Amino acid sequence: MISKNEIKSITQLQQKKYRDARGLFVAEGPKVISELIEAGVALQAYYTTDASATHIPNASQISARDLQKISNLKTANSALAVFEIPKGTPFVPNGLVVALDAVRDPGNLGTIIRLCDWFGVTQLLCSKDTADCYNPKVVQATMGSIARIAIHYADLESTLKDIELPVLGAFMDGTNVYKTELPKEAVLVMGNEANGISNAIATLISEKISIPQFGASTTESLNVATATAILLSECKRSY
Amino acid sequence: MISKNEIKSITQLQQKKYRDARGLFVAEGPKVISELIEAGVALQAYYTTDASATHIPNASQISARDLQKISNLKTANSALAVFEIPKGTPFVPNGLVVALDAVRDPGNLGTIIRLCDWFGVTQLLCSKDTADCYNPKVVQATMGSIARIAIHYADLESTLKDIELPVLGAFMDGTNVYKTELPKEAVLVMGNEANGISNAIATLISEKISIPQFGASTTESLNVATATAILLSECKRSY
Repeated sequence: MISKNEIKSITQLQQKKYRDARGLFVAEGPKVISELIEAGVALQAYYTTDASATHIPNASQISARDLQKISNLKTANSALAVFEIPKGTPFVPNGLVVALDAVRDPGNLGTIIRLCDWFGVTQLLCSKDTADCYNPKVVQATMGSIARIAIHYADLESTLKDIELPVLGAFMDGTNVYKTELPKEAVLVMGNEANGISNAIATLISEKISIPQFGASTTESLNVATATAILLSECKRSY
Repeated sequence: MISKNEIKSITQLQQKKYRDARGLFVAEGPKVISELIEAGVALQAYYTTDASATHIPNASQISARDLQKISNLKTANSALAVFEIPKGTPFVPNGLVVALDAVRDPGNLGTIIRLCDWFGVTQLLCSKDTADCYNPKVVQATMGSIARIAIHYADLESTLKDIELPVLGAFMDGTNVYKTELPKEAVLVMGNEANGISNAIATLISEKISIPQFGASTTESLNVATATAILLSECKRSY
């Protein structure tokens, strides 16, 4: 059984202002939840329809109907957990860093976090107008990877100005990425879904790169998440 | 003004059975619609809130409120069009072909169609249990690319048995794709989001390939659309 107040307090966490005020976020599904617990993210509450999962600390068994009430998914999974937002660590520019300039779509952000995890990128730098990484849709799309990547929200322009690493950026008119030797330590900047990299950030890019197009010329640009996949693969493939 | 019957008849097209029975599908947004018109897909009806767009054949101007009623989007764009589903062309196995084995998520299918367009892959082969390419979410995610790719739904097993091209498939334990010379003409098989390539199809793969993982060992596998992006890039980069 779950009280009306509890339902309200959990569903409020779908909004950034409540997540920020209370320092909490929600994750759904046993797999994502266990990855977060394993990564050491502090669990505040655990709601499950599965009687065999109630040994987990802070767990309560609830009905499927109650779970649907607190879920952000169209069809709730078997568990939902409330976690404390981890304290941020300072951004230390080294290795390969991905930087996002106003990536707005939660699904794209989640996919990019998962890609960082796959390619061993441990730090993700986000402009302040990038989607919030604790948005429930982002948390779900990362499949647990969110627990393993340090995500920093910062003023992208001033941060990039102070960085000594080469700054790569994807542009339609950059040099062919397949014919460029990419630095092993760098910041890779990916731009907004509709507008690409903003003018202010573009002036800070030291190397403009481009994924060649093989199809008809009327093709839309690549989706930002698939472009990130290809560029991270290019950065790492020569290792 | 739009009648109740018209609203019903259009929203029914969100379901496959009505699309199949009537040979029609819906696209939203002036950009996607104009790409479909340009590619020669037959326009049946065009609803727009934009008075300046009513010169388009079969166009009716309607209110934003009426547009929302027929839209499949949370917030309707400025236009929605009904198109005839193009007649299929026979599948001719040549060049680089992508084959999908039970890819269920409409967003993934749409992204893969857009990737095919970018990389000049003109034929996409789908198992019968792959998402329907005329699902409105697929049509939106393709950003118009759907008009330029020949999409064939077929019994994947018997089709692959008859094909003389090499058949590549992505597996966790395949050979490192970065160290493999990929054939220029081939079928690239991508598997289901949760289960990968099915056993029946796996026996038909002539070359198992794998995208190496650089991150922590607990990382989830890559999303099928981002894996397709990386593998298509690998197939094309040496051209």
